[in-house]
Amino acid sequence: MIKIAVDMMGSDLGPSILVEAIKQYLEKEKDVAFTLFGDKETLSQLIKEGERVSIIDAKDVIPMEIKPLDFLRKKESSMYKAIASVKNKECDGVLSAGSTGGFISGATFLLRNIEGVSRAGLCACFPTYKRDKGAVILDVGANNNNTAEDLYGYARMGRLYAKYILNVENPSVYTLSNGVEEGKGRDEVVEAYKLLQERKFPNFKGNSEAREVLDGEHDVIVTAGFSGNILLKATEGVASMMNRLIKDSFSYSFLTKIGYLFARRGFKDMKVRMNYKKYGGAILLGVNGVACKAHGNSDAYAFYNAIDITKKMIVSGIVDKIRSDDDKGA
Amino acid sequence: MIKIAVDMMGSDLGPSILVEAIKQYLEKEKDVAFTLFGDKETLSQLIKEGERVSIIDAKDVIPMEIKPLDFLRKKESSMYKAIASVKNKECDGVLSAGSTGGFISGATFLLRNIEGVSRAGLCACFPTYKRDKGAVILDVGANNNNTAEDLYGYARMGRLYAKYILNVENPSVYTLSNGVEEGKGRDEVVEAYKLLQERKFPNFKGNSEAREVLDGEHDVIVTAGFSGNILLKATEGVASMMNRLIKDSFSYSFLTKIGYLFARRGFKDMKVRMNYKKYGGAILLGVNGVACKAHGNSDAYAFYNAIDITKKMIVSGIVDKIRSDDDKGA
Repeated sequence: MIKIAVDMMGSDLGPSILVEAIKQYLEKEKDVAFTLFGDKETLSQLIKEGERVSIIDAKDVIPMEIKPLDFLRKKESSMYKAIASVKNKECDGVLSAGSTGGFISGATFLLRNIEGVSRAGLCACFPTYKRDKGAVILDVGANNNNTAEDLYGYARMGRLYAKYILNVENPSVYTLSNGVEEGKGRDEVVEAYKLLQERKFPNFKGNSEAREVLDGEHDVIVTAGFSGNILLKATEGVASMMNRLIKDSFSYSFLTKIGYLFARRGFKDMKVRMNYKKYGGAILLGVNGVACKAHGNSDAYAFYNAIDITKKMIVSGIVDKIRSDDDKGA
Repeated sequence: MIKIAVDMMGSDLGPSILVEAIKQYLEKEKDVAFTLFGDKETLSQLIKEGERVSIIDAKDVIPMEIKPLDFLRKKESSMYKAIASVKNKECDGVLSAGSTGGFISGATFLLRNIEGVSRAGLCACFPTYKRDKGAVILDVGANNNNTAEDLYGYARMGRLYAKYILNVENPSVYTLSNGVEEGKGRDEVVEAYKLLQERKFPNFKGNSEAREVLDGEHDVIVTAGFSGNILLKATEGVASMMNRLIKDSFSYSFLTKIGYLFARRGFKDMKVRMNYKKYGGAILLGVNGVACKAHGNSDAYAFYNAIDITKKMIVSGIVDKIRSDDDKGA
C-alpha cells in the first residue's frame, strides 16, 4: 500500500474540494492510502476514517506568507505534521495545496537535501504548443540565487523527472538564457553551460530563450529560481490576459457572439491543450522524500492530478534515483 | 528642423521597407530631415537625396551577433557612422533596426552614459490589457547584472519616459520581483525597493509580479536586464503561441471555420489591441543622445512608429531631463 500524507488546510478553496479529489482517487486506485492532516472535527464530517483513510488532528494552519523560522515554530500545523510523517517514514510522500514558501521551508528543513544535491529546486511542468507534451522547468522559485552547480543539479533532477514521471525517452535539456549562443547570460548560466558540456550531460542542447521554451521541443529547462519565477508568472499572466482578450473578441458584437456558437468546440480544445491543471502542481526536487505542492486554487480535477503525480513519484522511486550514484554523472 | 540619423542596413527585411516608412514620414511630418547611412548605390535607387534627405555611404554592416570590441573596429559600418553622427551633433537622434547587441555597445561607447547614470538600460513598451495603455519595462537586456542603484536609475528614466513620451501624468513605478511583499527577491531588488522608498520616489508602488505587469495598471516596471529579458521574451513567446492556438481553434472543424467568419472583427480588434508595433521598438535610456532600436523584423508600420518615437524623444528633450538635477532625486 502506498501511503500519501495530505495537508488538508491552507488551500484557497477549503478542504471539501480536496476531499472530493481524494474520494475519487480512492475509488479509482486501490493501492493508495491517505493520512489526512487538519482539523479533525471538520475533516470527519467530510470523510470517514477507514482502512485507507486516517485523520490526524492538527489545529494550526500555515499562513500564505511565512518566514522559514516561523514555520519551525508551527509544530502543530497540518503542513508541519504532514511533512514530518514522511520524515518519520509513516508516509511515502506528502502533498499540500497550502503556502508554497512554507512548504519549501518545511520540506527543506524536515526532509533535508539529498547528499550531493547543493540546492533543492521547485519543478513545474508547463503545457506547450504540442498536444500532451509538457516542458519541465526548474527552479521556479525555491531560491533567489543559484550557482552553476545548483543548475547542474537541476538538469540532472529535471531529466530524471521528465524520464520517469513524464515518460520522455531521452529528454532534451536546456539552460535558460538571454540568447542561444554559448557565453550568453548571467555568470551562473555561462558556467552551468560549461559544466553540462564538459561532463557530457546526456542530450544537453545549450541555451534556450524564454520565447521558445514552450514550443514542445524543449523537455527540460534549467534556471535560477528568480528568473524561473519570472518565466512561470509571465507565462501565467500572458496566457490569462490572452484568454480575457479572446472573451472580449467574442463579445465584441452580435455577430462575433454568433461566431462563438460555431467556434466554441475549437476553443474548448484549446482549453484542453493549455490546461496546466493536468500537471497537478509543482514538485520540490532534491529533498529526501516525495514532496508535491498543488496549486493553492486547485479544484478537484487539479488536486486529483496532484495526487497522481505524488503517487507516480513514489512508485518511480525518483528520490532514490536522484540519490543513486548511477545517475549522478548524468 | 529635427535631424534623425538612420542606420539603413542590418534589418531583417532590407532597406526598401525602411525607405517606405521614411517616405511616409517625410510626407506627414514636415519638420523632420533624415540622414541615411548605408550602401549609397543601393539607397540612391530607393530614395532621392534632397533638402530633407541625405545619404552617407557606409559599406560595412554590423552582424547580428557581435562582441563589443569588434563593434569598435567597424568604423565604416552604417551603424557606427549613424551613432557617431549624434555624438558629433550632426544629427539629433539615431534609429537602427540592426543588431541590438551592436547598437547597445555602440551607443554606450560612442555617446557615453549621462553623468550620474550608473548603467544605461534598454527600455521597451509592452501593450497591456487596457486599450492604448502601454507598460514601460526596463532594462530588457542591455545588462546581465544590475545593482540597486542601476534599478533606481531605471525607475527615474522609466518614469520620465512614461511621462514625456507616453503622456502618463503620474506614472506608477514598480520593481519586478517574485512576490509583492517587501523583502522579496534578489538582493538588488530588495535594496532598490528600500532606496526608492527612502528617497520617496514619486508614486513608487512596491514590488510587482510578472503575472500582473501587463494588466494596464502598471506604468513603469524596473528590473535587472537578465530578468527583464526573460520577461520580454516569455511575453512574446506566450502571445505568439496563443495566436497559433487561436488559429488552430478556428480551423478545428468546418463549423469553427464558419465561426471565424462571424467572429473575425472581434479578433481583428484584439490584434489591434495587442499590436506591439505601435511602440516602434526599444530605447536605450541613459546615454548622451536619443538612441532608438527598432525591431529587426520591423515592417513599414513598425518602423514609421519607431521614427515617431525617435522624434518625440528629441522634441521632449528627455535626454536633458535625465541629465538635469531637477529630476535626479525623482
